[in-house]
Amino acid sequence: MHFEAPLLLSSGASIRAYDLSYETYGQLNAERSNAVLVCHALNASHHVAGVYQDAQGQTIARSEGWWDTLIGPGKPLDTNRFFVIGVNNLGSCFGSTGPMHRSPETGEIYGADFPVVTVEDWVQAQARLLDRLGIDQLAAVMGGSLGGMQALSWTLQYPERVRHAVVVASAPNLTAENIAFNEVARRAIVTDPDFHGGHFYRHGVLPKRGLRIARMIGHITYLSDDVMNEKFGRQLRDAALAVRDYKYSTQDIEFQIESYLRHQGDKFAEYFDANTYLLITRALDYFDPARAHGGDLARAFAMARARFLLVSFTTDWRFSPARSRELVKALLDNQRDVSYAEINAPHGHDAFLLDDPRYLGVVRSYFERVTL
Amino acid sequence: MHFEAPLLLSSGASIRAYDLSYETYGQLNAERSNAVLVCHALNASHHVAGVYQDAQGQTIARSEGWWDTLIGPGKPLDTNRFFVIGVNNLGSCFGSTGPMHRSPETGEIYGADFPVVTVEDWVQAQARLLDRLGIDQLAAVMGGSLGGMQALSWTLQYPERVRHAVVVASAPNLTAENIAFNEVARRAIVTDPDFHGGHFYRHGVLPKRGLRIARMIGHITYLSDDVMNEKFGRQLRDAALAVRDYKYSTQDIEFQIESYLRHQGDKFAEYFDANTYLLITRALDYFDPARAHGGDLARAFAMARARFLLVSFTTDWRFSPARSRELVKALLDNQRDVSYAEINAPHGHDAFLLDDPRYLGVVRSYFERVTL
Repeated sequence: MHFEAPLLLSSGASIRAYDLSYETYGQLNAERSNAVLVCHALNASHHVAGVYQDAQGQTIARSEGWWDTLIGPGKPLDTNRFFVIGVNNLGSCFGSTGPMHRSPETGEIYGADFPVVTVEDWVQAQARLLDRLGIDQLAAVMGGSLGGMQALSWTLQYPERVRHAVVVASAPNLTAENIAFNEVARRAIVTDPDFHGGHFYRHGVLPKRGLRIARMIGHITYLSDDVMNEKFGRQLRDAALAVRDYKYSTQDIEFQIESYLRHQGDKFAEYFDANTYLLITRALDYFDPARAHGGDLARAFAMARARFLLVSFTTDWRFSPARSRELVKALLDNQRDVSYAEINAPHGHDAFLLDDPRYLGVVRSYFERVTL
Repeated sequence: MHFEAPLLLSSGASIRAYDLSYETYGQLNAERSNAVLVCHALNASHHVAGVYQDAQGQTIARSEGWWDTLIGPGKPLDTNRFFVIGVNNLGSCFGSTGPMHRSPETGEIYGADFPVVTVEDWVQAQARLLDRLGIDQLAAVMGGSLGGMQALSWTLQYPERVRHAVVVASAPNLTAENIAFNEVARRAIVTDPDFHGGHFYRHGVLPKRGLRIARMIGHITYLSDDVMNEKFGRQLRDAALAVRDYKYSTQDIEFQIESYLRHQGDKFAEYFDANTYLLITRALDYFDPARAHGGDLARAFAMARARFLLVSFTTDWRFSPARSRELVKALLDNQRDVSYAEINAPHGHDAFLLDDPRYLGVVRSYFERVTL
């Protein structure tokens, strides 16, 4: 969807004209009352569910949407009943206008000149998309992690346009440790000599070293210590080759966890844009709805009107259950209707993308009571 | 101390001739029964206690030994009673032979050709130093973190030469998550274009970008989430300048935690050797005394004869109390004499270097019952 009207951003800058990529699943009902907006996290896109087909009608392997476990016909968020919208955020590298595109003002590729965008800016852009789709009010807005922050922000920026908010593995803001991990990842990218101040496109190079490091750090924080020990432990890479000794090398891969992380880093560096990584981690850092209220989260949520489902996972140390409980408390302080599930899952932050039956069951039950 | 006899290493390689830097504090008694060896962790040296003076006899600012809170006259490890030895490990960049020195075989600076050293190799080298100092048996061996691993290894490699082992904030091996953090740090260094395969000395450059990233990652893991929130929280860097808005920048410093981490990274990159960083983190990865016993830690410690004090800190997520408890269990399974203190401290792994009075009190009480 193309938008000609400029979007004024939190920073004071504006984007003059832009495109948003989106996908929809199911049918909007006659009353236009069954729309659910799904917001994405760091590394995802508008492709939330289903698979793609090639020109011959064959399913493309590994093209499942990132929340395909949760969304589809007969699934917890049932597209036989709901009209689901996935939208790619501004600044992304998966279709919507971002640093890899040309500025309509200068004709140059934005690169590092793409304006800093916030969760609030994304929500504003999403609201404009809904305007164009003729949807006044969402049955629900839903997201995990950074996507959950957008769902929270919807209930504050457009309280009358959201009946329900489903917020999974999220937080009212980042802790100092969260910001610290983001900052190290950003420094790895920015100090890569191939970054060229964010204008690497002009030089025909990509700051892949930095992106690899950023992704490796990310993956450590997505998993729990427990699940890492279970999946990898201290297994050597060549453990299958029977008992053998260490290689005694500082640079070769010795342990399976090293092989896993390097592989994840290499894959990511092939497809993810470095400037997008900076923008999205900064949007995470900046999100803090209590800030305008002297740090009082209850006051921040005084304007919310939606009903809420919050879900957290016990081993998620990136967005821990304690952070979700802060949100529950702030909502209860405002007599909001809140359901909260703390799922005992070993998978850390990644759990929100996995198919734990208790987690899926909670989401299913919640959507069953969402009236249209 | 110079050593001419080659040291055969765990890897099968050997170091032909080498120097070890060491310091001593207090007096060796006539029976030679009051020696305590103190082993250092990643970023430390033989300078464990006291301060240095300049040529005019003036105390040099910030020259305190890294365990000066714990070691000295009248301190928990009382140098009026004990003869304390601090030794810098092979491969370090603080005096003992390491990658920055010339190989006696090739005449070239070792760089990446310095052999991979293990905790066991360090202990072997330390034992040779004690031989030269005429010390047959230690009253105690003591260390924190990686230093604690050396103390553990002493009780297995030279069971008759150690009466007591004091093991603080340590572990029987690294978890997958620990290895993962080490690996990311190493990749940041190795992929820095200024690393030149570890032979950067020849090129007149230093891989400072990589070292900075490595140190930033390290600092995140040394602190607890709680103490980071308390020290930095979401404070903006210019918070002192009264209420102000975000800068909206992905590259400028916005939060105090960013400023702290960049400062730590910059400082470290000025003085620490990149090859040493690789070697020391790899020694951490490799340490695993249960490995030769099919993973059975109790069997590994069957040969230990020392008495043990283990100390852990509740918020240490790098070497958590659970890891110390594994050691306690393995020692009790062997009817060893073990004291264990789990200190409720907010400071994370860093707590082992700080002056928590309960921690210092435990160490003091323990050393008071060490007979000479």
